[in-house]
Amino acid sequence: MRIGELSSRTGVPVPTIKYYVREGLLSPGELTSPNQASYGERHERRLRLIRALLEVGGLSVAAIGEVLAVMDDTGRSVHKVLGAAAQRLVPVYSGAPDADTELARARVARLIEERGWRVAPGDKAVEALVAALASLTRVGQGSFADVLDEYAGAAERVARADLENTARGVEREDLVETVVVGTVLGDAMFAALRRMAQVDASSRIFPQE
Amino acid sequence: MRIGELSSRTGVPVPTIKYYVREGLLSPGELTSPNQASYGERHERRLRLIRALLEVGGLSVAAIGEVLAVMDDTGRSVHKVLGAAAQRLVPVYSGAPDADTELARARVARLIEERGWRVAPGDKAVEALVAALASLTRVGQGSFADVLDEYAGAAERVARADLENTARGVEREDLVETVVVGTVLGDAMFAALRRMAQVDASSRIFPQE
Repeated sequence: MRIGELSSRTGVPVPTIKYYVREGLLSPGELTSPNQASYGERHERRLRLIRALLEVGGLSVAAIGEVLAVMDDTGRSVHKVLGAAAQRLVPVYSGAPDADTELARARVARLIEERGWRVAPGDKAVEALVAALASLTRVGQGSFADVLDEYAGAAERVARADLENTARGVEREDLVETVVVGTVLGDAMFAALRRMAQVDASSRIFPQE
Repeated sequence: MRIGELSSRTGVPVPTIKYYVREGLLSPGELTSPNQASYGERHERRLRLIRALLEVGGLSVAAIGEVLAVMDDTGRSVHKVLGAAAQRLVPVYSGAPDADTELARARVARLIEERGWRVAPGDKAVEALVAALASLTRVGQGSFADVLDEYAGAAERVARADLENTARGVEREDLVETVVVGTVLGDAMFAALRRMAQVDASSRIFPQE
């Protein structure tokens, strides 16, 4: 199909499609004449994925580029691809480590041990959790760390559901795409559900007026 | 204290502090001479809150401004403030509604009914969940909706822990701040835990090499 049809099918404006091609997020169409290119179903699928990660997942164009590059690296084993993709889907904090960070790190190490989780110490998700806990302490909400075990239990339940859903994707490309989409949109989905459950719980506790 | 001390205590550069004052995120210091202002503990606390929402929570300066304005509106009841703050902590999607959106909306309505959640239909969290589900269908990952019930159960557990933690904040200002911080940093915390639990589950399922 021509770029105009690709645009009307996906709702992505033509200049935006061209921008994604320039940025390397989308492979160029096949040239059918010196100034006309043809696009296929793979382009359409990739374009929908980019929009989902951008609009619902809130990822930047640069972050999407990194994740897609990992997805397209067919030389790696599935486990390695999943790991590399996961590392790119975690925000990185640049703050200098302080006493709050060290305390948070010890708390997270204890949690990992208690849960028996097989997670490497340098894992970026671990660092993200340490940063969030340290930040809570800094704003005087250190008591929030008391919910950590409840959160971890809920996260295990969600991750189990995630993996069961993932295991259905048979082909390699499907599998990796499922994990990436599930990770990013799953966060958005869970955040929305948490808000809804909070509204419900709050309406039962606080006076309504 | 002077702005220099406020800066060294919080690690926020002086020009950034001035920028937050100009943007209305931080109230100006008390003028002690025509070109010198004095800052107190309230400024320090607010500044730490802004940094936490910005760095760990990933909120924009504009979004933080809106949330702080709601927090500072002492004319409203606690329940109204919590509701208004929650509405501002949910991303808004602008995509035109289509068939996928309508199907997702019906699915979410069913979930709310099954769970007996007291959530208004126009709630922004509901719209965010509808957008995430519709987006999953659009990228060919509609089967992901099968995990919705597991996610909702986990979200109830997390929300219960959130509210129990919140109920400890006795003063009004503390209460609202706890909810805002808990909502934003809680999302970051849960996302990190979900990643960690996934790594653990994945290491048990997929070959390690």
